[in-house]
Amino acid sequence: MRVLGIDPGTVRMGYGVIDDIDGVPRFIACGVLKASPRSTLGARLKALYDSLREVILTHKPDEIAIESPFVARNVRSAMAIGEARAIATLLAAQSGVSFTQYSPAQIKSVVANYGAGDKLQVQEGVKLLLGLSTAPGTFDASDALAVAICHHRHRRLKGLAP
Amino acid sequence: MRVLGIDPGTVRMGYGVIDDIDGVPRFIACGVLKASPRSTLGARLKALYDSLREVILTHKPDEIAIESPFVARNVRSAMAIGEARAIATLLAAQSGVSFTQYSPAQIKSVVANYGAGDKLQVQEGVKLLLGLSTAPGTFDASDALAVAICHHRHRRLKGLAP
Repeated sequence: MRVLGIDPGTVRMGYGVIDDIDGVPRFIACGVLKASPRSTLGARLKALYDSLREVILTHKPDEIAIESPFVARNVRSAMAIGEARAIATLLAAQSGVSFTQYSPAQIKSVVANYGAGDKLQVQEGVKLLLGLSTAPGTFDASDALAVAICHHRHRRLKGLAP
Repeated sequence: MRVLGIDPGTVRMGYGVIDDIDGVPRFIACGVLKASPRSTLGARLKALYDSLREVILTHKPDEIAIESPFVARNVRSAMAIGEARAIATLLAAQSGVSFTQYSPAQIKSVVANYGAGDKLQVQEGVKLLLGLSTAPGTFDASDALAVAICHHRHRRLKGLAP
């Protein structure tokens, strides 16, 4: 079972792919999709759509999970969250892949009991949980892997429930 | 020159198409694209994407204009605005059609000096400005025509500027 985790943004979108090997999450790939901050909203959304579509075609996930805050600093930032989330949601629906949203608190509770500092904590947690020798290069990529791990954990908990 | 105006929403998305005939806006078509409020966000966004794509393929607009509030009642509603706007923006970019956003205040200032009441005022203004014998059937459709008329007016003002 392959999970694609997404940390959405309209300029940088992190992605992380893991497999479930006998119940253990295993690292497959991660990276950051970028759109030029200077280009128009349309050009940015199109660039992210094309890149994320490529990731889905390449890695063929069985399920997609996305970090989805329910609060935002302000209206402008809430609209940007909605925009980025729409691209990921639309692509999941177009690909016929099931799609689950997790709050930042849900994700943090799964991966962040390690190290200090929010972003570093997640990165260190992801490294340990996936048995990697080095942490994923960028915060966007490790955040996306954390989303995938969170989904993996929730799926297993559901599967174990009576 | 053909303009497609869009009043975005994640359950109902209004659209209105007008032509510029010797500087006068002329009604071509309008309607409302609907997604089931009971279906998932992914299914709704996909339905709206498919329907709006069909509208663009059918009417082949030269330019697209969209109502784009910069304020929202709350974070949840701001995210929904972002989601709906992302679908319209992405499709405009994918179709290679230029794309302009207008605030509700800009749109209202062009069409709403007629009748009483916000929505009715816009509907009556659209009817008069397009020389229609009856007002467009729904508020979503007349709001979308108002966006198209607003863009038409702004384009003409720009063209007349030195």
